[in-house]
Amino acid sequence: MKIVIVGGVAGGASAAARARRLSEDADIVVLERGEYVSFANCGLPYHIGGTIPLRQSLILKTPQEFKARFNIDVRVRHEVMSVEPAQKTVTVKNLATGEIYTETWDRLLLSTGAAPVIPPIPGVAEPGVFSLRSISDMDAILAWIAERSVSHATLVGGGFIGLEVMEALTERGIRVTLLEMGEQVMAPVDPEMASALHQEIREHGVDLRLKTALKQVSRTADGLSVELSSGDALRTDMVLMAIGVKPESRLAVEAGIVSGKRGGIQVNANMQTSFPDIYAVGDAVETPDLVFGEPALLPLAGPANRQGRIAADNMLDRHSQYRGSQGTAICKVFSLSIGSCGASEKQLKAHGARYEKVYVHGADRASYYPGATMMSLKLLFDPISGAILGAQCSGKNGVDKRIDVLAVAQRAGLSVTDLEHLELTYAPPFNSARDLVNQAGMVASNVINGDTAICHAGEIVTMDTERQCLVDIRSPGELAQFGEYPNALAIPVDELRSHLDSLPRDKEILIGCQSGLRGHVVLRILQAHGFRARNLSGGYKTWRAVVQAMNV
Amino acid sequence: MKIVIVGGVAGGASAAARARRLSEDADIVVLERGEYVSFANCGLPYHIGGTIPLRQSLILKTPQEFKARFNIDVRVRHEVMSVEPAQKTVTVKNLATGEIYTETWDRLLLSTGAAPVIPPIPGVAEPGVFSLRSISDMDAILAWIAERSVSHATLVGGGFIGLEVMEALTERGIRVTLLEMGEQVMAPVDPEMASALHQEIREHGVDLRLKTALKQVSRTADGLSVELSSGDALRTDMVLMAIGVKPESRLAVEAGIVSGKRGGIQVNANMQTSFPDIYAVGDAVETPDLVFGEPALLPLAGPANRQGRIAADNMLDRHSQYRGSQGTAICKVFSLSIGSCGASEKQLKAHGARYEKVYVHGADRASYYPGATMMSLKLLFDPISGAILGAQCSGKNGVDKRIDVLAVAQRAGLSVTDLEHLELTYAPPFNSARDLVNQAGMVASNVINGDTAICHAGEIVTMDTERQCLVDIRSPGELAQFGEYPNALAIPVDELRSHLDSLPRDKEILIGCQSGLRGHVVLRILQAHGFRARNLSGGYKTWRAVVQAMNV
Repeated sequence: MKIVIVGGVAGGASAAARARRLSEDADIVVLERGEYVSFANCGLPYHIGGTIPLRQSLILKTPQEFKARFNIDVRVRHEVMSVEPAQKTVTVKNLATGEIYTETWDRLLLSTGAAPVIPPIPGVAEPGVFSLRSISDMDAILAWIAERSVSHATLVGGGFIGLEVMEALTERGIRVTLLEMGEQVMAPVDPEMASALHQEIREHGVDLRLKTALKQVSRTADGLSVELSSGDALRTDMVLMAIGVKPESRLAVEAGIVSGKRGGIQVNANMQTSFPDIYAVGDAVETPDLVFGEPALLPLAGPANRQGRIAADNMLDRHSQYRGSQGTAICKVFSLSIGSCGASEKQLKAHGARYEKVYVHGADRASYYPGATMMSLKLLFDPISGAILGAQCSGKNGVDKRIDVLAVAQRAGLSVTDLEHLELTYAPPFNSARDLVNQAGMVASNVINGDTAICHAGEIVTMDTERQCLVDIRSPGELAQFGEYPNALAIPVDELRSHLDSLPRDKEILIGCQSGLRGHVVLRILQAHGFRARNLSGGYKTWRAVVQAMNV
Repeated sequence: MKIVIVGGVAGGASAAARARRLSEDADIVVLERGEYVSFANCGLPYHIGGTIPLRQSLILKTPQEFKARFNIDVRVRHEVMSVEPAQKTVTVKNLATGEIYTETWDRLLLSTGAAPVIPPIPGVAEPGVFSLRSISDMDAILAWIAERSVSHATLVGGGFIGLEVMEALTERGIRVTLLEMGEQVMAPVDPEMASALHQEIREHGVDLRLKTALKQVSRTADGLSVELSSGDALRTDMVLMAIGVKPESRLAVEAGIVSGKRGGIQVNANMQTSFPDIYAVGDAVETPDLVFGEPALLPLAGPANRQGRIAADNMLDRHSQYRGSQGTAICKVFSLSIGSCGASEKQLKAHGARYEKVYVHGADRASYYPGATMMSLKLLFDPISGAILGAQCSGKNGVDKRIDVLAVAQRAGLSVTDLEHLELTYAPPFNSARDLVNQAGMVASNVINGDTAICHAGEIVTMDTERQCLVDIRSPGELAQFGEYPNALAIPVDELRSHLDSLPRDKEILIGCQSGLRGHVVLRILQAHGFRARNLSGGYKTWRAVVQAMNV
């Protein structure tokens, strides 16, 4: 059995190692166009920033190590020019010598990855305009920074790479302008969840420009000039194009392998392409999304590694299936983390899906334990079945843990009504006795069971004062400290029972507190006294984030 | 509807608040023997240590706040003397005035908690001998420390309270002797997992004495003297009895309510006792253990809070059920965290249960990212069904997250073969692309599928060199750095393929590496060449921990 693997990073590398562990006598050849295999793609921004001081630590395994440990023939700087499915061959070019040769295979794995999207903007080919995908890209950026004494960089695109490089350069003392065409950075989350991120970015001195596109790059006497869709022009020392990536499916397409609607290689759950002996994994393929069941592109390292292992299993005639993607992801941006799993509200809306959402805010550990910081969690669910559709969380600490808990719950098919029953680790340095996930589950259960009625911040914004009345139940101290809702009647929660007379009986009462918790207590009081009322989910904190997101 | 709640901490407090949210017109009375309701029990050690500087921050809600917010009649220093189920009354003593009165109820909730176990050791009633359960206990300890300028404390019992107070006092500069009758502290984990904890404790200067009991306390001219089962006697300034707690079920038993084998109040999933209108929650009750299905005592805050909510639901005629306990728990001990969920190996053995175990070691974040520290994870599972039976994890960071992920997986009924498919948050500051839980799942799947064969450290200890041969596949550098296995043949992994001749064909080969990962690669090579072989799960790290645990 001879297995040829095209691409030796993430999915390709893990398929190669797994294949050897399954079969000591298979011939395994890895053909990698670049200079390195099995390098830490995700670590590149952190070496640029200096957080990871040693370049060497990004190179996880050399070809020599693959040979010694796994008896795998890894050939770097060997580019596969074409795939011949009928002949079961690939045509390979040795980039060092220019030699072109044919390699046969019994099973072929395409782990060709994705390439940065570079739109046809005038000037993007200028020296000083970069993308970041490989060790070589990183080396080029670092060399440019050193040679040109870069003091200002323009980053185009507020996705993972853009955000991580923004942090890295800022930490090196380089001023950064971050351009994002959309209304928010970090597309996997919804705008109101991204708004804390926008604030964090700006507080760190980054010139964040939303709804702003790059129009042109030009060389000037002392560097570069970027022209923006806003009409502004900025002097800058370097430009990083980080708009996104597109699957590298050219080889597959030219070989007649079926690709999907989104341009990725089509595979089944065995990671098998339309040719049974050709497999594909990683950023180059489309895999089914767990929420919608539709093929999606998901250029993330975790799924790529898992797919590599699964492809190896199947190439060696073991049954193993990929179970779809949730898109679980996280990004650290200065002192803030923001993570998500499943579908966003934007996606649910675009799909016309039935959903409800709740927002909760709470501390990452016991609120009385030093160092406790607040997190905000948005939970999206099916209000009939209770199915977990998606979750988003931001905060300084503990965000990864809450998203992981919800990602497992979602994958296991738990309902939001199961979340309050989760028994999670608790001691004051780690958590509250009621984790924020438990709390979100309780609120969602209350919604599903009809034990609460919630409204959302958008409804406060568009409130009809003829028919609705917003009651702010926070204390006067809180109003002074955090700010006020517009047009609200202020009655502190603990005085409410004695002030029921001052509430209008002919209007629907919308209840606003700081985080949505006390509002539920008030709601129950009002309902018991015959009022029509709803509690603002997430309270003032969520309302403010929604308003900020509307006004970017 | 009149609801009387006996005990106003954790379960009682959360039941009261939930009951009010469900019914605005119920009469709700909370009778609390102590001076405080709704205080942060779990925070007591941290105020003793000074980590939580303000005593006030431990008092979550006062009776006045309960009245204002929830219209609940909270009476502190009111002790319930007896329960009369037939009359639906309780007899109450106002501890402030001595007055005794009768209170009627429609539904009664017993949230009476647990009391410290104080064995009948001579001298335990001396001043200076404490237990820690309430704010008053804490106050007394702090006053004693201040008045007597305590420089040495003797803690009896290596459970959560003993460990947390040990840390607290050490951080205050007080020298600590910790006595533990058993072979290990932190009973929920197995001995080899506790051995890292023993090391951490000793490295912080604590005089940890395992297999040592307290025999006597005596007053001396300048403090106290403690006499130990070892024959030693120590001068000390204070003693804390932290052996464990027993359910406070006296009231229930005297009222004829059925209690269980372990002395806790028996309840059904509705938290209902043998009298349908009397409910009970928290440390006082027995709840079914998720693994064995048997009633167990679980004095933990999380379950108590959930049970309170469930009892309130049922008292107000809503259907809500407690789903059993996993005993998910965690403890921070200096810079180490150790956590667990489900059953331990000790428990599985005691139950004669079918189980297998795997050990994995890995970094809490990308190994190349600064600050990465190692974790050790033990996963217990049913080797036939794959059911997750229990998990234990220790390390400096990220232990809570891994136990939470496994606790959700266990509760959701996932198999260990599902764990490799979990899609968890990944970015270098938070994780590896393959989380340690994914990795444990892969190893366990390999075991179940027969793709690996493992042995355990105990078998290395008792190895029969006539029939078995241990091969240490680590590099010479590792041997020098970490130490050697006894009686091992050293052949570095990357040289193994060319040294197959030097391995005995007539013996079973046991493969030892540093963490168990590379050993699997070697196992597959050896199996392919016809050797009988098994890989030591967890490698040298686990072997060393097991040996240390054997030699305490």
